[in-house]
Amino acid sequence: MFNTDRRYWGWGVNGNAFPEPMLQLARAFLTAKFGTAPAAQRPVPSLDALRMNAPTLAVPAALAAFVTDARYDRAVHTYGKAFRDVVRALDGDFTPAPDLVAYPRDEQDIVALLDWAARAGAVVIPFGGGSTVVGGIEPPREAGARRAGVITLDLCRLDQVLDIDRVSRCARVQGGVYGPALEAQLKPHGYTLRHFPQSFEFSTVGGWIATRAGGHYATLYTHIDDFVESLRLVTPAGVLQTRRLPGNGAGPQEERLLLGSEGVLGVITEAWLRLQDIPRHRAGCTVKFADFMAGAAACRELAQGGLFPANARLIEREEAMFMGAGDGQNHMLVLGFESARYSQIDRLQAALAVCAAYGGVAGKSNVRDDSDAASADASAEQWKQSFLRAPYLRDELARMDMVSETFETCTTWENFPVLDAAVRAAAHAAMQRECGAGLITCRFTHLYPDGQAPYYTVIAPGTAGRQLAQWDAIKAAVSGALVAHNATITHHHAVGRDHRPYYLQQNAPLSLAMLRAAKAAVDPQGIMNPGVLLPPDQD
Amino acid sequence: MFNTDRRYWGWGVNGNAFPEPMLQLARAFLTAKFGTAPAAQRPVPSLDALRMNAPTLAVPAALAAFVTDARYDRAVHTYGKAFRDVVRALDGDFTPAPDLVAYPRDEQDIVALLDWAARAGAVVIPFGGGSTVVGGIEPPREAGARRAGVITLDLCRLDQVLDIDRVSRCARVQGGVYGPALEAQLKPHGYTLRHFPQSFEFSTVGGWIATRAGGHYATLYTHIDDFVESLRLVTPAGVLQTRRLPGNGAGPQEERLLLGSEGVLGVITEAWLRLQDIPRHRAGCTVKFADFMAGAAACRELAQGGLFPANARLIEREEAMFMGAGDGQNHMLVLGFESARYSQIDRLQAALAVCAAYGGVAGKSNVRDDSDAASADASAEQWKQSFLRAPYLRDELARMDMVSETFETCTTWENFPVLDAAVRAAAHAAMQRECGAGLITCRFTHLYPDGQAPYYTVIAPGTAGRQLAQWDAIKAAVSGALVAHNATITHHHAVGRDHRPYYLQQNAPLSLAMLRAAKAAVDPQGIMNPGVLLPPDQD
Repeated sequence: MFNTDRRYWGWGVNGNAFPEPMLQLARAFLTAKFGTAPAAQRPVPSLDALRMNAPTLAVPAALAAFVTDARYDRAVHTYGKAFRDVVRALDGDFTPAPDLVAYPRDEQDIVALLDWAARAGAVVIPFGGGSTVVGGIEPPREAGARRAGVITLDLCRLDQVLDIDRVSRCARVQGGVYGPALEAQLKPHGYTLRHFPQSFEFSTVGGWIATRAGGHYATLYTHIDDFVESLRLVTPAGVLQTRRLPGNGAGPQEERLLLGSEGVLGVITEAWLRLQDIPRHRAGCTVKFADFMAGAAACRELAQGGLFPANARLIEREEAMFMGAGDGQNHMLVLGFESARYSQIDRLQAALAVCAAYGGVAGKSNVRDDSDAASADASAEQWKQSFLRAPYLRDELARMDMVSETFETCTTWENFPVLDAAVRAAAHAAMQRECGAGLITCRFTHLYPDGQAPYYTVIAPGTAGRQLAQWDAIKAAVSGALVAHNATITHHHAVGRDHRPYYLQQNAPLSLAMLRAAKAAVDPQGIMNPGVLLPPDQD
Repeated sequence: MFNTDRRYWGWGVNGNAFPEPMLQLARAFLTAKFGTAPAAQRPVPSLDALRMNAPTLAVPAALAAFVTDARYDRAVHTYGKAFRDVVRALDGDFTPAPDLVAYPRDEQDIVALLDWAARAGAVVIPFGGGSTVVGGIEPPREAGARRAGVITLDLCRLDQVLDIDRVSRCARVQGGVYGPALEAQLKPHGYTLRHFPQSFEFSTVGGWIATRAGGHYATLYTHIDDFVESLRLVTPAGVLQTRRLPGNGAGPQEERLLLGSEGVLGVITEAWLRLQDIPRHRAGCTVKFADFMAGAAACRELAQGGLFPANARLIEREEAMFMGAGDGQNHMLVLGFESARYSQIDRLQAALAVCAAYGGVAGKSNVRDDSDAASADASAEQWKQSFLRAPYLRDELARMDMVSETFETCTTWENFPVLDAAVRAAAHAAMQRECGAGLITCRFTHLYPDGQAPYYTVIAPGTAGRQLAQWDAIKAAVSGALVAHNATITHHHAVGRDHRPYYLQQNAPLSLAMLRAAKAAVDPQGIMNPGVLLPPDQD
């Protein structure tokens, strides 16, 4: 029932191969960097070759219209899209595959499925686009944790914009709609959500909400949270519907307990979302900084000054170069303002004055009014294209025995320099030990008045058969540095299974106790996504 | 131990009487409006005359250094500052008075007090400034709900700014600091919180957080929520401390379950707050609209356009006039922009163009740069002064047998006209029935892209001895209209005891079940503020 062009082993669709000339450039860069050429790309295992257990659940007759145990469907729902997912998939290890995959046609199907699962003693994993990089949709591996069996509940058929309120500029949207389909349905009405995570093409509204995804805006509206007006959630204990309220002060905000719940409370079937008018005025520029910390200081002043750039990504020089942008000598701040109503030239100029005060050298400003076409100078546009293609490249690097992954965090401006030094030291020591060499680069994805979200990319020459252990060791080292320096284990990648130990260590024990109690109130048998956020034995 | 100048029967301090000439104006207005002159002001009962039960708890020897059973302290902690509080206080009914009042000197005192209360079977009511208008700090009246006795825990001694992070522009603040003391401690550092609820002078940081107070900004940062970076809460099960994170995507946001918890989970002892630089550029104007709905349409476009005015209060003509501002013929939009860094003239002009498109006629623009003095034109300044004095006037009206109270809500732009008509119809019918006449006026306090927060003022000629029943009937009628039209029972006045039935009706049953479960996790004996938010028997 699933689009069979979707890769079960990595990012995206089979038809969309990473361009060979660009792959050659990446090879050349890495060969120069590490002194040895990456290995040839190993082959992708065929569907038949995957190691997968026989399902422990039979398709229930009453649900046969939307439940399958087909091999492809189970394979494509086994892993998310992290480096460690790709490596395991390339190795053909599909042991955790769900026993069944459900494609509910409507909310009634979901209610019926949860009822059946509760009676059968099975566990249920809500699935949006499957783009998690933290094991958020990965079934438990151990037989005990799988109970009677695992059913993955894929929302892809709930893909409609159901209602638009033009006066309040909101839309009622089903949880399973993918980014491009959402924008396509909004555009004829003159609206856009403008929530563009890197996973945009292969992630859903429900997934964004369940994981508190980070989006397009570098300031102000950094997470999907800001666009959620109300929510509808199907839980094992019934349906939870919040009201449409622009603001509310009645008790703790209902939606905020559901935002970030990662499927452990229930299935997000609908949301009213706040929309944007399509921007018609844009002003952008790329600013070069010789010193990264000077660029960071400019970002801080931009974030505290109230100009609210839509885009303000500070990218370390080596990362910019690897992505085919920048000059390799300077760090690059991609700066952009946008509005549906007002020229943004003055704001851009004010921002450039801030940058200049910190030694930032502005490239050619790119200003367009009365156009709904995207606008950016050549470097920025190059970077954006590379940004969207990056997951494809990452997968090819995995096939070349490289270790290639990202991680992100958030911290105060005051804490950043010490944190950054600690993260880099931890990464370099671990990469040296595990791989003999390695590269770590940083960009800022989102800016706040009180801090920023640094996003790190790691590339190291891995070893066939050891890639997983190598990355796990590096990840443990950098995560240790994040925890030691009070930075969050994730700003917008969510917790899933992979970040769970750090989440349990970082969040207040009493907060976790309240979350556990809240879960027990709507999922008394603990069938919803056990092992994500909370340990399965705590459910 | 409490500042003995504070009124136990109404708003503020004894020294700050409402100016007699302005009271005469109010009398004249009401006489003209209702055809009969309001009664003479009834006397305020003396402390000795108050009807108060003997305390059922003795001051525990171990806590005697900060706990008292003194009559004044019990009286001043009996009620909040709603109209129904003032009427009951003027009647001398102090039956619900707490048995003891605690003034902890530090967090250790709070821990000791909660321990003692749990052992004694007593209930604890956290108390900030006591400015609640929803019964948020009122002790239970029934003997059963009071258990062994009631202790009010007044945070007023925890009144310090403990730490300032200049790089991240944040301060660590104790929960008991009052608005003016907070600003006084921040000002030497060049900072301000700029959270100015009407209760500013007599409310605290902890109270703002516990009730999700609405503040100064009409757009963008409408609630205190937006300024809270991290929180510290003492619960019966221990201390809960969240981390300082500008943004975070790890699970449901911890702080959001504590924001709005109204003392039922624990006591807010500290918070890291995001600060503002003191504004140096201001641009403001008063705009007249002949038609309120045209003004509302202008507000909608302002809210959706991304100009982010700091002030944008649309005030109905009769309310403006009663407050001593406006010409009585036109509705009035008080519009203001501010920034620490950039001139706001262009933004004001863009906003005035929006207003003009809806028939808004701008008064003289008032623009000041490089000054930290407040700036507004005469009408706006008049209105602001009246705004801060309004609670004093309300109390004098209560003494004249009037019914005088406010209520507020939030709804989408699409829903507003129908809601507004229903609210006014319900209010007029109830006022006619109960009082023979009455006035209801509206202003918008906060604007959102998807809706607004309408704030209603009700004044009706009441009857001595029946004021409480009269207001309760009017409140029930308008609350019924809010519920029937899916508007929230409160945008920023909180739930307390008075809104509890509507809160329980409006919030999703499963949300309430999760909140109850969360409370049980940190307050297993249900000693924290029972009867607020949740019914006491549900604790």
